[in-house]
Amino acid sequence: MSAGAKPVVATMIGDPAGIGPEVIAKALATGEPHATSRPILVGHAPAIESAVEMTGVPLTVRRVHDVEGAGMDPSVIDIIDQGELEPGSYTLGHESAACGNASYAWLDKLDAMARSGEAAATIMAPINAGSLRMADNPKPVFNVDEGRTYLTLLSGPLRVVHLTDHVPLRSVPKMITRDSVLDAIRAVDDRLRAWGVTNPRLAVSGFNAHAHGREDLEQISPAVQEAAAEGIDVSGPIAPDTVFRHCIDGRYDLVLAMYHDQGHIAVKTWGFVGNCAMILGLPYIHMSVGHGTAFDIVGQNVARHEMILSAMTEAASLAAGRGFLPSGGGR
Amino acid sequence: MSAGAKPVVATMIGDPAGIGPEVIAKALATGEPHATSRPILVGHAPAIESAVEMTGVPLTVRRVHDVEGAGMDPSVIDIIDQGELEPGSYTLGHESAACGNASYAWLDKLDAMARSGEAAATIMAPINAGSLRMADNPKPVFNVDEGRTYLTLLSGPLRVVHLTDHVPLRSVPKMITRDSVLDAIRAVDDRLRAWGVTNPRLAVSGFNAHAHGREDLEQISPAVQEAAAEGIDVSGPIAPDTVFRHCIDGRYDLVLAMYHDQGHIAVKTWGFVGNCAMILGLPYIHMSVGHGTAFDIVGQNVARHEMILSAMTEAASLAAGRGFLPSGGGR
Repeated sequence: MSAGAKPVVATMIGDPAGIGPEVIAKALATGEPHATSRPILVGHAPAIESAVEMTGVPLTVRRVHDVEGAGMDPSVIDIIDQGELEPGSYTLGHESAACGNASYAWLDKLDAMARSGEAAATIMAPINAGSLRMADNPKPVFNVDEGRTYLTLLSGPLRVVHLTDHVPLRSVPKMITRDSVLDAIRAVDDRLRAWGVTNPRLAVSGFNAHAHGREDLEQISPAVQEAAAEGIDVSGPIAPDTVFRHCIDGRYDLVLAMYHDQGHIAVKTWGFVGNCAMILGLPYIHMSVGHGTAFDIVGQNVARHEMILSAMTEAASLAAGRGFLPSGGGR
Repeated sequence: MSAGAKPVVATMIGDPAGIGPEVIAKALATGEPHATSRPILVGHAPAIESAVEMTGVPLTVRRVHDVEGAGMDPSVIDIIDQGELEPGSYTLGHESAACGNASYAWLDKLDAMARSGEAAATIMAPINAGSLRMADNPKPVFNVDEGRTYLTLLSGPLRVVHLTDHVPLRSVPKMITRDSVLDAIRAVDDRLRAWGVTNPRLAVSGFNAHAHGREDLEQISPAVQEAAAEGIDVSGPIAPDTVFRHCIDGRYDLVLAMYHDQGHIAVKTWGFVGNCAMILGLPYIHMSVGHGTAFDIVGQNVARHEMILSAMTEAASLAAGRGFLPSGGGR
């Protein structure tokens, strides 16, 4: 990407029966995504047209075949619609095999665009587990490959990478090794530098209360010392009940948490409205949001767009190598 | 206690070399403790006199021998000083055996006052671990007796009781049994009713991510069902990363957490300034605060008094059987 060029950020519209289309329309209407990127949607054009009409945002929808020349005009929503979904084949607020099949096809399209270099980053609006289960070939999406990729939550100044994700908590201790922690620290430092975070300041959470325990002393501490010896700016193990607050207060750029709920309790209890998720360690930036399809409120123009907007703008900033968005600690 | 009578709340001043005396003086100067209780201090009168002078609060200090007639005048700080500490035997901001010995003596005095019925509740301002270690007969204070008493954090609308406290996280799974969870639910429900919480609404956190795991299904869930069958209003196991936010939003009065960091990450990351701690299951209400002696800022009139004030007012409300203070969810 040439200096100053805006990265192409491809967003799949999520399950069209959910709130994805409407929150995307409202997010694009802020003008923020176009200010720093070329946002291009992947999905069902009629779903976006309906969302534009329902929300009343002053935007028009244009079908495009590829990213060439697309995503430039902030008054236009460019969408790649390859006809994966028959018009009229779904109902707002209801799951369906049609939407499940289309969701999978759009995710494959995102992946292809990112791997070919057409898109610098990808966003997944909320998909629906019920629709996916009804699809012809159900498979997991947005899953972590333990030890190779890391679930990451971005919530304003609070940024958390999880060493482990959906494993029983009783199995986590044996997964916390000097090597696994060191690998994660190196991967995080490497990615943050690639995304333009100058001199990343990393914190590693302990595993036990007050970071006083066997795993803290025998595994996490040596890993942190080794990483520091390699020149990485990393501190830890830090008491799990204080490290996240320190990150919010700006003392660190990111916290490496040891297990799912360490980070998730911090992020979701703090309650910042603009949080988003990504999997660190994939060959490209792929973000999702913390909310679901919200079938109960779809089509009412009450769904909030802060999460999808933060995913779009944060992805653009990282893809352009400009680091994390300044967050200011607001709510 | 007769209807409308104000409960006696006895507060030990903490390590006199720390910020305890000054935050107590500022808390009493708000007038709030006297509005709902008869606050009486236990400690070193000269330390409080110095704190009153340094902070400039318009209060006078009066030495009393017991609670008889004390704690009635909001312009007067009544303190029981039995001469445990020699004047001039300590320096602000420094640990000392003298302060450690005095701290232990004052805690014993609080305990005696509560057990005799002189005080309806007790408060411990911050003590200093260094001073306690230098004392003649060091012993643990404010410790949980696993399975019999429960560490409780009160932080505005977010209230958390911990099933386990300072045990290695790898040892927690075997401590989560149907019986241990059921005992805790019953104890919490019983105490909350005694404190005047009408129809307590309890939530029980799961142990694993999304409350999907062996402990959640085999131990926590049957305990919750049994408690519900007994007529207790209890829900769970609920996903650990959402249950605390639900409590903040007012859906529950209190959350039973499975381990130390579940609750502590939630409370400390949320960042409510007026949080305090208590041990549920003791024969009387005994509260402490989340901050320490803060030797680095003592005597500068910058220490914040919200925590000790919330301990004093919350203890008064519970001791009088008026339930938790209305919290409003402010910061």
